Amino acid sequence: MRGLDDLPPRVTVYEVGPRDGLQNETQTVSTEDKVRFINLLSAAGLPAIEVTSFVRPGAIPQLADAEEVLNRIERHDGVCYTALVPNMGGMERAANSHVGGIALFTAASETFSLENTNATIAETLERFRPVLTEARRTKTWIRAYISTSFGCPYESEVPPQAVVNVARDLANLGAHQIVISDTIGVATPAQVVSVVEAVSDEIETARLALHFHDTRGTALANVLAGLQLGVTTYDSSAGGLGGCPYAPGAAGNLATEDLVYMLYGLGIETGVQLAKLVEASAYLMRVTGREPPSRYFQAAAS
Amino acid sequence: MRGLDDLPPRVTVYEVGPRDGLQNETQTVSTEDKVRFINLLSAAGLPAIEVTSFVRPGAIPQLADAEEVLNRIERHDGVCYTALVPNMGGMERAANSHVGGIALFTAASETFSLENTNATIAETLERFRPVLTEARRTKTWIRAYISTSFGCPYESEVPPQAVVNVARDLANLGAHQIVISDTIGVATPAQVVSVVEAVSDEIETARLALHFHDTRGTALANVLAGLQLGVTTYDSSAGGLGGCPYAPGAAGNLATEDLVYMLYGLGIETGVQLAKLVEASAYLMRVTGREPPSRYFQAAAS
Repeated sequence: MRGLDDLPPRVTVYEVGPRDGLQNETQTVSTEDKVRFINLLSAAGLPAIEVTSFVRPGAIPQLADAEEVLNRIERHDGVCYTALVPNMGGMERAANSHVGGIALFTAASETFSLENTNATIAETLERFRPVLTEARRTKTWIRAYISTSFGCPYESEVPPQAVVNVARDLANLGAHQIVISDTIGVATPAQVVSVVEAVSDEIETARLALHFHDTRGTALANVLAGLQLGVTTYDSSAGGLGGCPYAPGAAGNLATEDLVYMLYGLGIETGVQLAKLVEASAYLMRVTGREPPSRYFQAAAS
Repeated sequence: MRGLDDLPPRVTVYEVGPRDGLQNETQTVSTEDKVRFINLLSAAGLPAIEVTSFVRPGAIPQLADAEEVLNRIERHDGVCYTALVPNMGGMERAANSHVGGIALFTAASETFSLENTNATIAETLERFRPVLTEARRTKTWIRAYISTSFGCPYESEVPPQAVVNVARDLANLGAHQIVISDTIGVATPAQVVSVVEAVSDEIETARLALHFHDTRGTALANVLAGLQLGVTTYDSSAGGLGGCPYAPGAAGNLATEDLVYMLYGLGIETGVQLAKLVEASAYLMRVTGREPPSRYFQAAAS
């Protein structure tokens, strides 16, 4: 574990608002507004944006326009536009939409996997196998989320070894990046240390990303712990968009504004322009009528 | 700077909600409700509570009932009940109300001091001199806030040396605890390191406390940096009560719930019972009709 004088000089802020954020918003957002929102995110300098999800259109109505959104957004040089892909059908649709990468997800908790995807963890990994073969064939970049890495709404505690086991399987299957995810927003920094150190014993830290929800206010403290461990990719959502499905009304994803503000203060480069980012969140606020939970946004807006 | 395996085993959570929180709330709270709120805080196990302020009653109408509140609250064994004291008149009133300690405040920024107290920093220190003499005579414990230690709404940047100078003067005057305070909620962890390290060169770390506002979401990350530096006292406000007077509508003091949740996760003892703390915040919410900004509170309530 490093001190604050030995943090990574540069960090990748991976924007998940258009996918993870919007899928948890109750208010429907039009394709037009999504495209405009994503264009504003690109203009703000975000290096990676998870644009949408190729689930069955009936499963998440909010994201049923996946192809159209990917077709209509401006593609900025150097920005990686990705989409969530749950299965082979999704992979084919994603490939036709020229994504820069795909994201898969499984869980560290067996009960969560069964409740959320109606499949055991092993079954989700089996389902990934053809997807990953196809992705490798087409040289598509792959990230894989491990949900409930720090706690589960059904099983409560999740042992770090459970995360290690899934991470190893995903790495062996060919995932380029493993996203250790705090789905319900319970993680504290000591847990970040134990889970990341355990996973780092098997997978190089450069391949890890951290995905926090700010449900209990600890997200940025967790990022600080991650930075001290050398992790260089952090997921966040513009404005803090998205709720926690297990705590309706509570704060959702770590807000990109809050993350970028802290990284800027730490002298860590992100390439993101905070004022433009606030514009993107403000645009979406006008569309949804909901004030973003981002603390930075609220301070900037007041 | 320590890693997370070398954090203090125990931390003092210094509750400032009844004073710093309420003084920034627009809704008037009755004496009866304040007393009940403070009793609930005592019952939750908080070891130190800043109950009120002995400013001129006209200056902050919300706290004009200082004597009555201090007379009516239940005093729990082992809990230190303090009050803010701006001058000798306040000191006499505080002494008559049997406070367990007094708090003074000055600033690290000259412009802030002038705007906020109509006195230079040197003048505020002169004003403290008789107060501190009297406090020492009566063996009263003294804490002293240094406002704007991480940034000023008028001067923007505040050099760490400015904080060191004021801290040294306060320590020489006999203050037992120096509270390095982020009045406008701009601090990031790297700043915490530079300011605390600079002050620690002159004053032992055990005499320092950190006071953060969560205006930009960085408060808990700042606490984590403080813990790694060995600081063992942190101010917070139940529910995140209180706004930032320079960003109306934005989040205010670090929420005690969020702080205690993180400390619990880090295995650091506080003696505070989170469920009872939420009860205290919920009581005040029913009184004011305002939902507390605490992330933990919102998750617990949903």
